[in-house]
Amino acid sequence: MKAKQEGYIHVYTGNGKGKTTAAIGLAIRAIGAGKKVFFAQFVKGMAYSEVKALKNFAPNIIVKQYGLNCFIYNAPTQADINAAKKGLFEVTQIILSEKYDVVVLDEANIAIYYQLFSITELIDLLKKKPKQTEIIITGRYACQKLIDFADLVSEMKEIKHYYTKGIEARKGIEY
Amino acid sequence: MKAKQEGYIHVYTGNGKGKTTAAIGLAIRAIGAGKKVFFAQFVKGMAYSEVKALKNFAPNIIVKQYGLNCFIYNAPTQADINAAKKGLFEVTQIILSEKYDVVVLDEANIAIYYQLFSITELIDLLKKKPKQTEIIITGRYACQKLIDFADLVSEMKEIKHYYTKGIEARKGIEY
Repeated sequence: MKAKQEGYIHVYTGNGKGKTTAAIGLAIRAIGAGKKVFFAQFVKGMAYSEVKALKNFAPNIIVKQYGLNCFIYNAPTQADINAAKKGLFEVTQIILSEKYDVVVLDEANIAIYYQLFSITELIDLLKKKPKQTEIIITGRYACQKLIDFADLVSEMKEIKHYYTKGIEARKGIEY
Repeated sequence: MKAKQEGYIHVYTGNGKGKTTAAIGLAIRAIGAGKKVFFAQFVKGMAYSEVKALKNFAPNIIVKQYGLNCFIYNAPTQADINAAKKGLFEVTQIILSEKYDVVVLDEANIAIYYQLFSITELIDLLKKKPKQTEIIITGRYACQKLIDFADLVSEMKEIKHYYTKGIEARKGIEY
């Protein structure tokens, strides 16, 4: 029997542009290599352009959103919390099923930052992951416990950004 | 007549994982929004998994590689230089044709680092770009002139990476 290739835990964090897009890029690369990808988006619930494009690769990729229709700007509501908890539950089943080689938890750091679920809940899940599963976690404000636990951490640092010139988010570029 | 939306120049640099994948993610998002993308890879010439997957979206995306079959580890050969110069020439025609909304110059920073073409040549091209074209430039060692000229710069900073544990590049994750 061929030994299973080991899967690692990646974290893409920081205040710069490129975290979710890096996760999308990894998903595309994995699909291109014949892997199966589950792409979970926390906090976000809008029909982003990338979600539309990724769905073309179904059933090699499944995209599910566990957020409501807007970003949380202040305190989360009970509905935000319920949506994220449901997401964490479903993602746990997905990971344990061993049906997906790569599982993306997009904006999970933000879900933890807003206390939609806890870092302990996430790390408990990561401890249970099948050896071969690759897990990709994105979002600003990755907490130190996750950084310590992960195998790979890239910080996307904003050196300059056009929003400081008053440019608003544009369809096809930011969402 | 509707005014053309302005396009900006992005740079994704730094020593961390996530630069090319961020460019792929942006390409996917743009395609999902109905935009047309030209994805040029400099230095690289291998049939990466992502190239295979992206080709599924043709003709909304065209992927072209302007590198030879391996990364340059020491000095570039004349063949490396010729391939990159040909790439820069073709990409110039592509940008000026106004047929593509987003043009990715993957690893262009590396091409400049190895003096396959010069930063002056790249900036001359960027100065000529049509107002509405979005340009995405990736690769380590972005030079200061490019950082100054760009509208958005994210530095992917390696906080930790599993290669330090001896893990080699894996198909579907690194290529």
